[in-house]
Amino acid sequence: MAESVKVVVDAMGGDYAPVEPVKGAVQAVKERQDIQVILTGDKTAIEKELGKYQDIPKDRIQIVHTSEVIETAEPPVMAIRKKKDSSIVVGLNMVKKQEADAFVSSGSTGAVLVGGQVLVGRSKGVERPPLAPLIPTKKGVSLLIDCGANVDARPSHLVQFAKMGAIYMEHVVGVENPRVAIVNNGAEEEKGNALVKETFPLLKACKSINFIGSIEARDIPAGFADVVVCEAFVGNVILKLYEGVGATLIEKVKEGMMSSFRSKIGALLVKPALKATLKTFDASEHGGAPLLGLKGLVVKTHGSAVAVEIKNAIFQCVQFKQQRINEKIAERINDQEQSTSEPA
Amino acid sequence: MAESVKVVVDAMGGDYAPVEPVKGAVQAVKERQDIQVILTGDKTAIEKELGKYQDIPKDRIQIVHTSEVIETAEPPVMAIRKKKDSSIVVGLNMVKKQEADAFVSSGSTGAVLVGGQVLVGRSKGVERPPLAPLIPTKKGVSLLIDCGANVDARPSHLVQFAKMGAIYMEHVVGVENPRVAIVNNGAEEEKGNALVKETFPLLKACKSINFIGSIEARDIPAGFADVVVCEAFVGNVILKLYEGVGATLIEKVKEGMMSSFRSKIGALLVKPALKATLKTFDASEHGGAPLLGLKGLVVKTHGSAVAVEIKNAIFQCVQFKQQRINEKIAERINDQEQSTSEPA
Repeated sequence: MAESVKVVVDAMGGDYAPVEPVKGAVQAVKERQDIQVILTGDKTAIEKELGKYQDIPKDRIQIVHTSEVIETAEPPVMAIRKKKDSSIVVGLNMVKKQEADAFVSSGSTGAVLVGGQVLVGRSKGVERPPLAPLIPTKKGVSLLIDCGANVDARPSHLVQFAKMGAIYMEHVVGVENPRVAIVNNGAEEEKGNALVKETFPLLKACKSINFIGSIEARDIPAGFADVVVCEAFVGNVILKLYEGVGATLIEKVKEGMMSSFRSKIGALLVKPALKATLKTFDASEHGGAPLLGLKGLVVKTHGSAVAVEIKNAIFQCVQFKQQRINEKIAERINDQEQSTSEPA
Repeated sequence: MAESVKVVVDAMGGDYAPVEPVKGAVQAVKERQDIQVILTGDKTAIEKELGKYQDIPKDRIQIVHTSEVIETAEPPVMAIRKKKDSSIVVGLNMVKKQEADAFVSSGSTGAVLVGGQVLVGRSKGVERPPLAPLIPTKKGVSLLIDCGANVDARPSHLVQFAKMGAIYMEHVVGVENPRVAIVNNGAEEEKGNALVKETFPLLKACKSINFIGSIEARDIPAGFADVVVCEAFVGNVILKLYEGVGATLIEKVKEGMMSSFRSKIGALLVKPALKATLKTFDASEHGGAPLLGLKGLVVKTHGSAVAVEIKNAIFQCVQFKQQRINEKIAERINDQEQSTSEPA
């Protein structure tokens, strides 16, 4: 049997805590033998949830009681510092002390990002750990790297993002020789802002990645690249506009369908098929965004994540550990120091 | 009768030239008495197109023959310099010499942007002329300013964009006291990259605009602001992702509708209503993007613009001239120099 992986799940994080995180954890340990889950949070509440399920492998699901909860609205740095007995801080500290391999949370994005960097710490050589959600495309998914909280990246950061993203897509998501592109305001090589212009030749010089050049935002949803590299401010705009355009367009579709008697009848017939197809293009469905380049793995699931997404995030952690992603990143990041110091 | 406005239309620009530009020009002069159109391009080709229409008011539609065409793929600066007898250069020069009030083209965006700045020239006090397309929202349209070719803007540029955008939305589009917001990676005031953080207090200090703070990309399609201010690289990403997500989602909707016999029947019933509603959310339908802050007006219509969009762009020019937008911009830009030199 493959090496067993220990994942801490924040039972207090997200809109549906503790119900959904606990349910996801139970599903994960039931489906795979090589997983141990530690739930951090209020013991009484978690035990009550666990009581709903039968045949739980009790040796592989445990509770670590915590007395505090970090709210979404709290300033992250302060929250991490003050709430030492919160489900997030305790969970991240377990990863730091190597008592666990990974931490999954649907709680405050800011607190998870700050805590991941401050408590778990960066891998040797990693300048800045990126947050890298999977976004839906026509063909499947792409990794959008970086969507984190640290904006105004330097070219060397983007080069590291490209390398980490390529490793993730290849070994966790299973895309062979992933196509890496940098977000730009045109496809031509002379296009770009100062950051992109400086980064482009560095990426071109990277032998370890399959760099295909610039990608215009229009071509991201079409799936022209597997790893979409950008600075976090731009990444944030892309991720949130995906959501925003999607939501507004779906509303328009519904409105259109309800606009006449004829179309209402049609809507009834179309609805089930449409729902299934649109689900494949829902950014939130792809759940876990890893915070890469840390000494352990930290995965942020969105605030409204339900059990299946928590479960998938846990499975991502297993894949990450078993595929030795951190070791692979450490290797390639060292190799990076050569190429970024000699721009092509 | 209102003051007559002279608009040059590039008859050779865009995917459907000269058919659609000529058709749009004919429709414009037929619908309104206060418009004169000058078509630049190959005289024989234009005359052939004009020959298709009856009852043209010949005194208000004229041809200026040009022998060259700037292709979309040509490097813009070189094209503007070399092709002095192209429909774009001749048209822009007419605006420069005040032989016309405005220029409309569906041709090379780069050439129109470069030519607008180099040939027509900036209004006094304008540091950088922004390209500002109207984008569809749930509620109507918003002005996305800047989507031009000059990236890496400074805070003072963004303040000018906000002022020019507000004037345009108020007096050309007709939105009273337009809400102005800056694109940010979070709604809180402390969020942002270096540029946004520096610009935010300057906008807050502007008494002449209705500044409502930051806007997250998610809320742009929902129509939370009338004037969406951003640096051109980010604007380009927003504009093109709008298109890209829209196109992919519509494909998914079609795919969903064709996935079963039941849904195919439903699709037939739903189609006409759906088509009409989705048309209101098609970024390309809103046609003309003005290049603001020049001595005359330059409007770029998208490459696949058809007659109705050319006509609407011509009408925009009339509104622009009759509302004395350039004079209003000049006034407010002078007023700007106080507020940007004293950040709040």
